[in-house]
Amino acid sequence: MLELRLVQGSLLKKVLEAIRELVNDANFDCSATGFSLQAMDSSHVALVALLLRSEGFEHYRCDRNLSMGMNLNNMAKMLRCAGNNDIVTIKADDGSDTVTFMFESPNQDKIADFEMKLMDIDSEHLGIPDAEYHAIVRMPSAEFARICKDLSSIGDTVVISVTKEGVKFSTAGDIGTANIVCRQNKTVDKPEEATIIEMQEPVSLTFALRYMNSFTKATPLSETVTISLSSELPVVVEYKIADMGYIRFYLAPKIEEDEEDKKH
Amino acid sequence: MLELRLVQGSLLKKVLEAIRELVNDANFDCSATGFSLQAMDSSHVALVALLLRSEGFEHYRCDRNLSMGMNLNNMAKMLRCAGNNDIVTIKADDGSDTVTFMFESPNQDKIADFEMKLMDIDSEHLGIPDAEYHAIVRMPSAEFARICKDLSSIGDTVVISVTKEGVKFSTAGDIGTANIVCRQNKTVDKPEEATIIEMQEPVSLTFALRYMNSFTKATPLSETVTISLSSELPVVVEYKIADMGYIRFYLAPKIEEDEEDKKH
Amino acid sequence: MLELRLVQGSLLKKVLEAIRELVNDANFDCSATGFSLQAMDSSHVALVALLLRSEGFEHYRCDRNLSMGMNLNNMAKMLRCAGNNDIVTIKADDGSDTVTFMFESPNQDKIADFEMKLMDIDSEHLGIPDAEYHAIVRMPSAEFARICKDLSSIGDTVVISVTKEGVKFSTAGDIGTANIVCRQNKTVDKPEEATIIEMQEPVSLTFALRYMNSFTKATPLSETVTISLSSELPVVVEYKIADMGYIRFYLAPKIEEDEEDKKH
Repeated sequence: MLELRLVQGSLLKKVLEAIRELVNDANFDCSATGFSLQAMDSSHVALVALLLRSEGFEHYRCDRNLSMGMNLNNMAKMLRCAGNNDIVTIKADDGSDTVTFMFESPNQDKIADFEMKLMDIDSEHLGIPDAEYHAIVRMPSAEFARICKDLSSIGDTVVISVTKEGVKFSTAGDIGTANIVCRQNKTVDKPEEATIIEMQEPVSLTFALRYMNSFTKATPLSETVTISLSSELPVVVEYKIADMGYIRFYLAPKIEEDEEDKKH
Repeated sequence: MLELRLVQGSLLKKVLEAIRELVNDANFDCSATGFSLQAMDSSHVALVALLLRSEGFEHYRCDRNLSMGMNLNNMAKMLRCAGNNDIVTIKADDGSDTVTFMFESPNQDKIADFEMKLMDIDSEHLGIPDAEYHAIVRMPSAEFARICKDLSSIGDTVVISVTKEGVKFSTAGDIGTANIVCRQNKTVDKPEEATIIEMQEPVSLTFALRYMNSFTKATPLSETVTISLSSELPVVVEYKIADMGYIRFYLAPKIEEDEEDKKH
Repeated sequence: MLELRLVQGSLLKKVLEAIRELVNDANFDCSATGFSLQAMDSSHVALVALLLRSEGFEHYRCDRNLSMGMNLNNMAKMLRCAGNNDIVTIKADDGSDTVTFMFESPNQDKIADFEMKLMDIDSEHLGIPDAEYHAIVRMPSAEFARICKDLSSIGDTVVISVTKEGVKFSTAGDIGTANIVCRQNKTVDKPEEATIIEMQEPVSLTFALRYMNSFTKATPLSETVTISLSSELPVVVEYKIADMGYIRFYLAPKIEEDEEDKKH
């Protein structure tokens, strides 16, 4: 028997909107630790990892580990029917092939339950080793989203270059080129507006903007985003979810054409 | 000669937006009593009845009964040109084949008149007998609109079931099922937020969500909606229009497939 | 070397949005006087003239006259990447085939530079003689935009008729006719809400609404619009740009069919 009660139900709506552009079907894994998901995007290029720790739920009962295969678009359709202030409860009986989402309005006048069929989804759980990153950038998530969107109007890829002074986002396309530099800035009125750079060594990596733009669908979940970069590793774009957990997106860098050219 | 002056001109705009999805062409009937309309939707499944009583107009002159056939989309195009605070006057000369909508801005600086050609429309006026209903539900109109919209993302029909405790809206579709229960609640801060049930006997009826969603286009006209249900009768979904009248939508229930199955 | 620094960068964004529907490619001319443009629309019916005087820039350096051919849609794509409070600088080196737009956020934390390729565009600069107009109407720009949009839902052309009492906008189409009269009104709370008519003699001219609607894309640039009419001349629709200059649209009147008919 599974019963997870989340007072801040709108958070689950935002989680779904954050990942459903990238992933169609995925297994949600429930254990004593929490409610989690790990999935590759449909073109097997990016990886999403979600964790909502059990302590963040008002009530969390999970008698035995359970993996529930869901179609994320259908799940999002149901969650969109929850009011923004509704309490959301996820329920499943042992051995059942359905999951129930219950939405309670704050004054308990309106109670909805949506029952969704589960799916069998093959998936292997990848171990993601902890890694040391050459550079970690923390910046306002809305700023990062704006930059990815702006650069998409010029080119298809973004070069992210980190130095001690700041982080530079660059692109080039048929109509011209663009460079956007965000300077390190710790002295701001609100801590979530800071741009903070922790750097072991300078790094410059190229990524597909299409994926970066998908990742920024998670912007409503957190005021800040953390971008961790190393030349040998996929970038990690992380959005913290209140005190409950995170969504992390992983994307391998593109081999830059310039470097390729140099080899010839 | 006809001259109807309505200070709250935006009300007429809302009336048109409420019915034009359902009805293309219709006769507006003017008499000493008021300005009214009765029309079937284009697929002859639902009926709309509108009444704006003469007392609600600032000035109401109607020398003889007049039936004016109008294309509601064209009429809506013209009314959309009225400002939200404009005074609207409907004018027609006896025997004329046009109607004029005059819009005056509050400070009288801008005066517009739009003249529209009338149409000949065959229509028979149905007598709608007063009826006793098994159950009458009054609830916030925005809540009802939200429920119809939410259920439409899951299924095509809604079962409305009324008991003394509350009203339940249910649907089922390929991706799962949904039930939304609104409890009776008379103790609210604002009377228009109450959900009030008057019930002679429990009732459970099935309707096409497509039509219910069309009816909810009238939501801007009133903060509450009244749903009157009887097993032998079409449902009446009524939106009161200030102190002037109402829009009522009538829709016959569907014969439930479950009941059909039982007969076999 | 060219370097034009505009503190109110959002103004340049608005200028581009105002003209890019009408003009695809155009030469921007820079001289000691200012930054200007003159271009016919793609169907060679309407003319746009833009002037931003050098005094309006925080910093204005233009060593020699320069004509820069730009694709306005590409330029708009880049300018849309500027924040609304950003300072915008336009830079070009002598003999370069690119122009650079630099955007600085108010706190200097984010600095972007967008480099765009220039084009060779053939264009002849028309001398527009100063003219005497029979009637000049100054009115709120939002009112004028609303009228053009409203009339477009009824007809394709607008007749603008000016008398001492006011200005009348009329149209006719399949579904009927429309007349909107704005009375002269100088006694308003805010001067930008006035409708003021300077008239030598009454005038009544017909124009294509499609172009008038394109002109109203400049509405965000100014709270008022000035419409100058003479029976022998193209109408001038002018939007002042703060204290810096203007956008003027020129459009030849249509020969009215009624007049044509009278001749037969």
